[in-house]
Amino acid sequence: MSGNTFGKLFTVTTFGESHGPALGAVVDGCPPGIALDETDLQRDLDRRRPGTSRHTTQRREPDRVRILSGVFEGVTTGTSIGLLIENTDQRSKDYSQIKDRFRPAHADYTYHHKYGLRDYRGGGRSSARETAMRVAAGGIAKRYLASQGIQVRGYMSQLGPIELAFKSWDAVEDNVFFCADPSRVAELEAYMDQLRRDQDSVGAKITVVADGVPVGLGEPVFDRLDAELAHGLMSINAVKGVEIGAGFSAVSQRGSEHRDEMTPEGFLSNHAGGVLGGISSGQPLIAHLALKPTSSITLPGRSIDIEGNPVEIVTKGRHDPCVGIRATPIAEAMMALTLMDHLLRHRAQNQGVVVSTPQLT
Amino acid sequence: MSGNTFGKLFTVTTFGESHGPALGAVVDGCPPGIALDETDLQRDLDRRRPGTSRHTTQRREPDRVRILSGVFEGVTTGTSIGLLIENTDQRSKDYSQIKDRFRPAHADYTYHHKYGLRDYRGGGRSSARETAMRVAAGGIAKRYLASQGIQVRGYMSQLGPIELAFKSWDAVEDNVFFCADPSRVAELEAYMDQLRRDQDSVGAKITVVADGVPVGLGEPVFDRLDAELAHGLMSINAVKGVEIGAGFSAVSQRGSEHRDEMTPEGFLSNHAGGVLGGISSGQPLIAHLALKPTSSITLPGRSIDIEGNPVEIVTKGRHDPCVGIRATPIAEAMMALTLMDHLLRHRAQNQGVVVSTPQLT
Amino acid sequence: MSGNTFGKLFTVTTFGESHGPALGAVVDGCPPGIALDETDLQRDLDRRRPGTSRHTTQRREPDRVRILSGVFEGVTTGTSIGLLIENTDQRSKDYSQIKDRFRPAHADYTYHHKYGLRDYRGGGRSSARETAMRVAAGGIAKRYLASQGIQVRGYMSQLGPIELAFKSWDAVEDNVFFCADPSRVAELEAYMDQLRRDQDSVGAKITVVADGVPVGLGEPVFDRLDAELAHGLMSINAVKGVEIGAGFSAVSQRGSEHRDEMTPEGFLSNHAGGVLGGISSGQPLIAHLALKPTSSITLPGRSIDIEGNPVEIVTKGRHDPCVGIRATPIAEAMMALTLMDHLLRHRAQNQGVVVSTPQLT
Amino acid sequence: MSGNTFGKLFTVTTFGESHGPALGAVVDGCPPGIALDETDLQRDLDRRRPGTSRHTTQRREPDRVRILSGVFEGVTTGTSIGLLIENTDQRSKDYSQIKDRFRPAHADYTYHHKYGLRDYRGGGRSSARETAMRVAAGGIAKRYLASQGIQVRGYMSQLGPIELAFKSWDAVEDNVFFCADPSRVAELEAYMDQLRRDQDSVGAKITVVADGVPVGLGEPVFDRLDAELAHGLMSINAVKGVEIGAGFSAVSQRGSEHRDEMTPEGFLSNHAGGVLGGISSGQPLIAHLALKPTSSITLPGRSIDIEGNPVEIVTKGRHDPCVGIRATPIAEAMMALTLMDHLLRHRAQNQGVVVSTPQLT
Repeated sequence: MSGNTFGKLFTVTTFGESHGPALGAVVDGCPPGIALDETDLQRDLDRRRPGTSRHTTQRREPDRVRILSGVFEGVTTGTSIGLLIENTDQRSKDYSQIKDRFRPAHADYTYHHKYGLRDYRGGGRSSARETAMRVAAGGIAKRYLASQGIQVRGYMSQLGPIELAFKSWDAVEDNVFFCADPSRVAELEAYMDQLRRDQDSVGAKITVVADGVPVGLGEPVFDRLDAELAHGLMSINAVKGVEIGAGFSAVSQRGSEHRDEMTPEGFLSNHAGGVLGGISSGQPLIAHLALKPTSSITLPGRSIDIEGNPVEIVTKGRHDPCVGIRATPIAEAMMALTLMDHLLRHRAQNQGVVVSTPQLT
Repeated sequence: MSGNTFGKLFTVTTFGESHGPALGAVVDGCPPGIALDETDLQRDLDRRRPGTSRHTTQRREPDRVRILSGVFEGVTTGTSIGLLIENTDQRSKDYSQIKDRFRPAHADYTYHHKYGLRDYRGGGRSSARETAMRVAAGGIAKRYLASQGIQVRGYMSQLGPIELAFKSWDAVEDNVFFCADPSRVAELEAYMDQLRRDQDSVGAKITVVADGVPVGLGEPVFDRLDAELAHGLMSINAVKGVEIGAGFSAVSQRGSEHRDEMTPEGFLSNHAGGVLGGISSGQPLIAHLALKPTSSITLPGRSIDIEGNPVEIVTKGRHDPCVGIRATPIAEAMMALTLMDHLLRHRAQNQGVVVSTPQLT
Repeated sequence: MSGNTFGKLFTVTTFGESHGPALGAVVDGCPPGIALDETDLQRDLDRRRPGTSRHTTQRREPDRVRILSGVFEGVTTGTSIGLLIENTDQRSKDYSQIKDRFRPAHADYTYHHKYGLRDYRGGGRSSARETAMRVAAGGIAKRYLASQGIQVRGYMSQLGPIELAFKSWDAVEDNVFFCADPSRVAELEAYMDQLRRDQDSVGAKITVVADGVPVGLGEPVFDRLDAELAHGLMSINAVKGVEIGAGFSAVSQRGSEHRDEMTPEGFLSNHAGGVLGGISSGQPLIAHLALKPTSSITLPGRSIDIEGNPVEIVTKGRHDPCVGIRATPIAEAMMALTLMDHLLRHRAQNQGVVVSTPQLT
Repeated sequence: MSGNTFGKLFTVTTFGESHGPALGAVVDGCPPGIALDETDLQRDLDRRRPGTSRHTTQRREPDRVRILSGVFEGVTTGTSIGLLIENTDQRSKDYSQIKDRFRPAHADYTYHHKYGLRDYRGGGRSSARETAMRVAAGGIAKRYLASQGIQVRGYMSQLGPIELAFKSWDAVEDNVFFCADPSRVAELEAYMDQLRRDQDSVGAKITVVADGVPVGLGEPVFDRLDAELAHGLMSINAVKGVEIGAGFSAVSQRGSEHRDEMTPEGFLSNHAGGVLGGISSGQPLIAHLALKPTSSITLPGRSIDIEGNPVEIVTKGRHDPCVGIRATPIAEAMMALTLMDHLLRHRAQNQGVVVSTPQLT
């Protein structure tokens, strides 16, 4: 319960720092008999992997994941699954610039005060490198959810000021931005090139959708599906906001507009984003998340050192000018882990519940 | 772990339905030796209480809370605190209109499918009446946090289309809307009166702020302070979105703008909303939440009954035309409970950590 | 996680002190649709109730339990179940004898140091009166387990020096000792009468058995069924030892004797007590627990007061000369709660697992 | 919560099978700033290591542990600590003898029914090989506890029929049996040699003691220190019974004998084993555990195969004729982990509690 575990029945516990020897995770509670091998997890790891385009950090990490336990003769055994990724590209560099000073808008200052010391190499535990294990663990959840007809996918819905409409899922995998509108990719390329020239960074908005979610997942009162999804998404580095369905636009809506009316043919709208009373409605589960612009930029900024003296900071090194670009697979992983946990929790209590009422599709 | 408990060290477990005999909670993990009596909890319960103005439900509930254990000779003993509120105004009414049909945008349909049956009286467990216990339990957290110099307060920052600036905390308690700008209250009154004539409902946006939070609260990686705060706020009925600090406006910000620079005199801005790397920075902790318009309106809407036949629904009874109006004390309670839990968790691991570096104020 | 909750999926959270206004519990995670009313819980409460014979404390408590939520129209709804028992016989008495002094072998000294203060009225939270709520909550678990063909029963297997063989379940309910051998009851009566004349107390051994447990309950590695059962039983006031199956007699056994051989007709013995590798084998689940003699006796004893001065203590008031006499229903409750929790946990992960291999009976 | 995690604040989550590539653990919640390196953990691993004498399995495992995270520049950072031990001596062997048949008194049968399949190589996850990670994680707890003046040690108090008195801690490390009486070692050697000739196995009893435990650790009601210690000890492979202090001998004791009287000079006895009301008293914490004789013997036994047909089983391979011989470091680890968790939990809630009353020593 000390912060490095996600989930209650399907749990993921992670460890590892940006520049340590390895990252790892223990995935517990996986149902037995599921076909699983490392290639199932590698695909999403490759989607998140750094250095795949000029718009992300140039750190080169193959992010090869090894399954160390819990799988026997190609299928899960029901026991805990150990995952390991070795760090291979931790450049030995000179840390004197950041060792004793706090980068603004980073965890340097807060970790230093919380623990009295910190691993300053690339942010240590606070680095987004940790999210590689979320993606690996999420791959196990995705694999199982797929066997239940549940598909989790995401795309970038805004890059800085550029809003991006959803056109097709096919388009998403054809560009490094996870943009669902192929006609906008060139515009994004140009924007990012200019941003690099400006030595600045920018935020982004990601949308994640789960199709095929059965009605009934989620627990009243505090463990609502949307509440735990918000927990998972907000726990991703740089995320500052989470919306379910209509989100903040619901503030100015009227009830007659917002309420998703029902007919025998199905719901007439999905302002709720697939959750009613904290429980999945059977409609697509839809969430949006806002990622802040990273503060790892080369424009000088004011800060203090550990003696409290004023210093000027220029964050060199290999950084993402828009961390949102690689965030889509991470957001998918957190939604998949949340759904997986709630699928098992629902079964535990409600196995065998029979409802004659037809489910809306 | 079955959904009715919030927190890990300072835990709140609740029970009770809208029209059952009583609501209750067990608050566990409270430090011993804290002066506490029922009046400490009653104040916030009265702020949330229904029927205090023509703009909220006319259900009359005194919401008198009783402390049944955990307090001896006026101070907490460190053992579990039992809280109870009797329901006094459950009108016996004719439920034939909703017994066998699902109100759109309510939990009727999802509870029915999850459990195979539901308590249809006023929404049963899914009713916002449950939040009375959150407020009572939150009062204990507020009491302790105050002794540590931490103050949690909230206000309404938007009512439907009407955005409301923050002017002063004093103003907040002088109007039923928890509006922080006294010059706008008449406008809000008029808007609500028209809304009632329209037989419709509307959404709202609430802002919650904690002052005096020490640096260091929050746990990497999954139990970040902002992630657990999002969990708590999103678990409130009708909430569809949560922002920390800049929230979604961070999407279009640049790093050079968003990063909160530091000087020996303090931070130069607070786009982060008081959290860096998931850990409190010592700045004010700021969150915004979006509440949807309730669907309990008297404008007819389309739905289905439990046989799946189309029906028309008109939600009569006593309802809030804007559930956001009474949400401020509930949001404060969830922030207080989250901070209380993390204060204890931080102590558990980091007691005795000494940091020579000065804390920014 | 603060100590007053038992279970992970089927959870019981309790509150209340010996001389407070009431005891209460929240039972969370109960499957929906189970017929349940207060009489289902009252039977075991009556079995545990004080004052039913001259061999137990003369405190008169009807221990009437009220169900405050989670049950609608006679069946469970799947939401949290609130339980309440009012204390009716808290005699106002003079506590000056124990207020400032620590009774030996009681929790007075440890609570005082842990919390800096204590509720000295009848032991406050440390009183075995708390176990009434375990029995009430256990009644819900027993009710559900019975619907699954699982029956949990217990009996007294030793009173002080008197070892008691198991003869029949029918006999157990016919005497106040829960003795399974009717021919020994007179002997027990005589022993207890002499013990009272000696103004002393004595220990006891209880045996609890669950029949009809399906194979497969229990989780490796730390949450073994026997480990969590030991946790539950050891958490009962005055318990100093727990055995599963052969228990400590396994120390001097040889493998060729201890191993429970299997044939198509079933196991040939049950030294394991129904658990192999921490998972139920389908054989009867058998546990023994040792209860210490209470130190609430009228023979003077040496102790200290809160200033550390030596004092002589004589524990007056209404006490059980053998707390083991009323412990059988409590032990049954803890075994039932443990099985209930593991039944749900097993379903969560292994629902749909098909095994062609026949189960041994 | 899926069974492979121990503790609530100081948590250990393990993975790995007997014949998989590696064993691992994540230790979360460790206080920062503690000097720690692999040699601190290796000592106990070497005490538990197989193949160190002719009385244990001849499997050769160096059990070299690697710390993969959570330690920076020689001290703990407060973030999760990843531990890894590679398996080096998994002989490729013919499993046809056990692949399709259940070894009696092993987890083969129960795992097969729980999960529908099992890793039959050396018992897979159910193998005691898993306990290596408990010892490694326990080493971290021991390291911290030592800094707080708490020392956890154990010894063998009975080998089969041979009861062994405690003589001195010095003696314990001088023999492979962890026997605290050097005069008995030759007798144990002879007994084990005969046992091997008999091709049989035998049980053992281990005693674990913690000195220097402060008063106040443990949480009422369910998370008593003794209850969670029983949980931890009973979760060790082959353990069938746990006693605290007087244990089962308390059954025949009288209150006047059992109660540990107090004087200003200290307690006059320790029948309680260092726990009163579930909370540490400041006296030595004493527990005894019973280990069954392993059923991995070469005397033929009756069993069934996965079709349910009768088979005769002879368990070849490299096994411990008395698993109790290597159990002492494992029991110490579980006691250390339990104390560590409760030390942090106590601090969380009761930091700053001041008690003028002197503590007894």
